[in-house]
Amino acid sequence: MPTVQIEMLQGRTIEQKRKLVEKVTEAIAGSLTCPREAVTIIIREMAPEHFAKGGILRIDNK
Amino acid sequence: MPTVQIEMLQGRTIEQKRKLVEKVTEAIAGSLTCPREAVTIIIREMAPEHFAKGGILRIDNK
Amino acid sequence: MPTVQIEMLQGRTIEQKRKLVEKVTEAIAGSLTCPREAVTIIIREMAPEHFAKGGILRIDNK
Amino acid sequence: MPTVQIEMLQGRTIEQKRKLVEKVTEAIAGSLTCPREAVTIIIREMAPEHFAKGGILRIDNK
Amino acid sequence: MPTVQIEMLQGRTIEQKRKLVEKVTEAIAGSLTCPREAVTIIIREMAPEHFAKGGILRIDNK
Amino acid sequence: MPTVQIEMLQGRTIEQKRKLVEKVTEAIAGSLTCPREAVTIIIREMAPEHFAKGGILRIDNK
Repeated sequence: MPTVQIEMLQGRTIEQKRKLVEKVTEAIAGSLTCPREAVTIIIREMAPEHFAKGGILRIDNK
Repeated sequence: MPTVQIEMLQGRTIEQKRKLVEKVTEAIAGSLTCPREAVTIIIREMAPEHFAKGGILRIDNK
Repeated sequence: MPTVQIEMLQGRTIEQKRKLVEKVTEAIAGSLTCPREAVTIIIREMAPEHFAKGGILRIDNK
Repeated sequence: MPTVQIEMLQGRTIEQKRKLVEKVTEAIAGSLTCPREAVTIIIREMAPEHFAKGGILRIDNK
Repeated sequence: MPTVQIEMLQGRTIEQKRKLVEKVTEAIAGSLTCPREAVTIIIREMAPEHFAKGGILRIDNK
Repeated sequence: MPTVQIEMLQGRTIEQKRKLVEKVTEAIAGSLTCPREAVTIIIREMAPEHFAKGGILRIDNK
């Protein structure tokens, strides 16, 4: 049942995403004692102009 | 006032999206007894490499 | 696969929520031609002090 | 700590987004009395076929 | 049309929330040149046991 | 930078949530090769009347 939304900067490979969902699912199933099949993950990629910290876009953050 | 976010795999036609928002709005207005105009819907499309169930990316799910 | 998040003001009965998820699931499955079992819905209730339109909290909106 | 998600129609310039995150961060830090550095903002752009009000896609809303 | 979700720790007064939505709406309308009435804000409060940074719950963060 | 939202049924202990954020942060940092400090997690708990699968509320799912 756990439903997970992960927001991250664009640019990761499919291999990294594959590993990401495998490891995060494992971490959730292990911590909450629920079956792996119950875990749903949605990944959303952001352009660096769509993330800001402290009022500064990532794209401007040198 | 109801605000709805729908996450779905990419690849639907505009005609399907048109029907989707019409029918979902109708379903919400009818169930909650609120005016149709009060319902806002945001659609987000996912690539098959951005959705996972049971730790397996949709793209790997044959 | 469609994952739906519905944000609405608190105060609806279980019967209304039951009808809501039944009708919205039907609307989505019908519009997108997917099985009903593929549709997940998360409901989130808001206190009237947690929703604003035009800069005015719902609680102040007489 | 405040985490903000802003959903808006696509088509804004980087300059507008730069101003947006600066002003929103300032507004939050000022209202909640927290440091600007604590504010995270995620922007998500929507195509006009992905936003609906009253059951009508923005793209159909003349 | 901009739809904003703000996640923050619980404990703010109504007066702070009132100021928050007023200022954030103003900031968005000013930056994106849209009418104030087009801005919707949803506030969600978190208990300190529901926020983590660097793998540590806020409640454990002395 | 990864920002994670986890939606789960209410009823977990603080100890389970502590383990959850530790393990999920580790899984993300390891898969994406980013520092643990960059990972933010928001947990949201749902009442069983606020989650539905296949049009049936969890509360009705015997």
